[in-house]
Amino acid sequence: MNLEAQWITGFVDGEGCFHVGINAHPDMTAGHQVLPEFTVVQHERDAQVLHALKSHFGCGVVRRNHGDRMAYRVRSKEHLLERIIPFFEKHPLKTKKRVDFAKFRRILLKMEAGEHLTSEGVEEIRRIASQMNRGQSR
Amino acid sequence: MNLEAQWITGFVDGEGCFHVGINAHPDMTAGHQVLPEFTVVQHERDAQVLHALKSHFGCGVVRRNHGDRMAYRVRSKEHLLERIIPFFEKHPLKTKKRVDFAKFRRILLKMEAGEHLTSEGVEEIRRIASQMNRGQSR
Repeated sequence: MNLEAQWITGFVDGEGCFHVGINAHPDMTAGHQVLPEFTVVQHERDAQVLHALKSHFGCGVVRRNHGDRMAYRVRSKEHLLERIIPFFEKHPLKTKKRVDFAKFRRILLKMEAGEHLTSEGVEEIRRIASQMNRGQSR
Repeated sequence: MNLEAQWITGFVDGEGCFHVGINAHPDMTAGHQVLPEFTVVQHERDAQVLHALKSHFGCGVVRRNHGDRMAYRVRSKEHLLERIIPFFEKHPLKTKKRVDFAKFRRILLKMEAGEHLTSEGVEEIRRIASQMNRGQSR
């Protein structure tokens, strides 16, 4: 299945999620681990579409999520910075999800600069992340 | 906001719904009314995207759905046959929603031929409609 860029943007406007988790992690300098991820979840009957996204981006994994749900997931900082973010810079989202994407991008650029390795950096990232994905309950 | 065809297809693959309701209606010859509709529901923060869909298709309405949800809705048989169906024939859906679309299209063509005005036609339409939108619980 071959996907056009605008189809991907439309589908991600509907079904995609940009999320940044922050976990306590005593072994790390800043005491926390910052975990950005891009996911698209679908019913298992549409696993083929998730595999097509994986092929298109050339990164990430397709795994079972919960029950009959499958997820395409990209967690690698390098793949997010080199493949996912440039794609949505070139093909902007049209829903308010573009605001979440902008915050996600901002956090990834901070991580690229190593800011997530200091306590101050983690606090700033936590502040930005707390403003993402609000009002999306179904 | 200008929408490209492939963006619309991707967005509808995620968020669109093709539905056919059948209501008892004693005044009608076949005792039932067949009510096809195409809908896209979004959080009110993305009402702008629904209005862009309405502009693109040149038909339908944008109304409040439930609570903070808005819906773009096309119910006119003529608009479904002349605008919505030809669009998705030309730009096929990529998820299994294309199977629902195919059944929706089949029912609309039966309605165009007047089959919904006979009891046998309504029963056949009911049979097709009962096989739509299964396995989509979130």
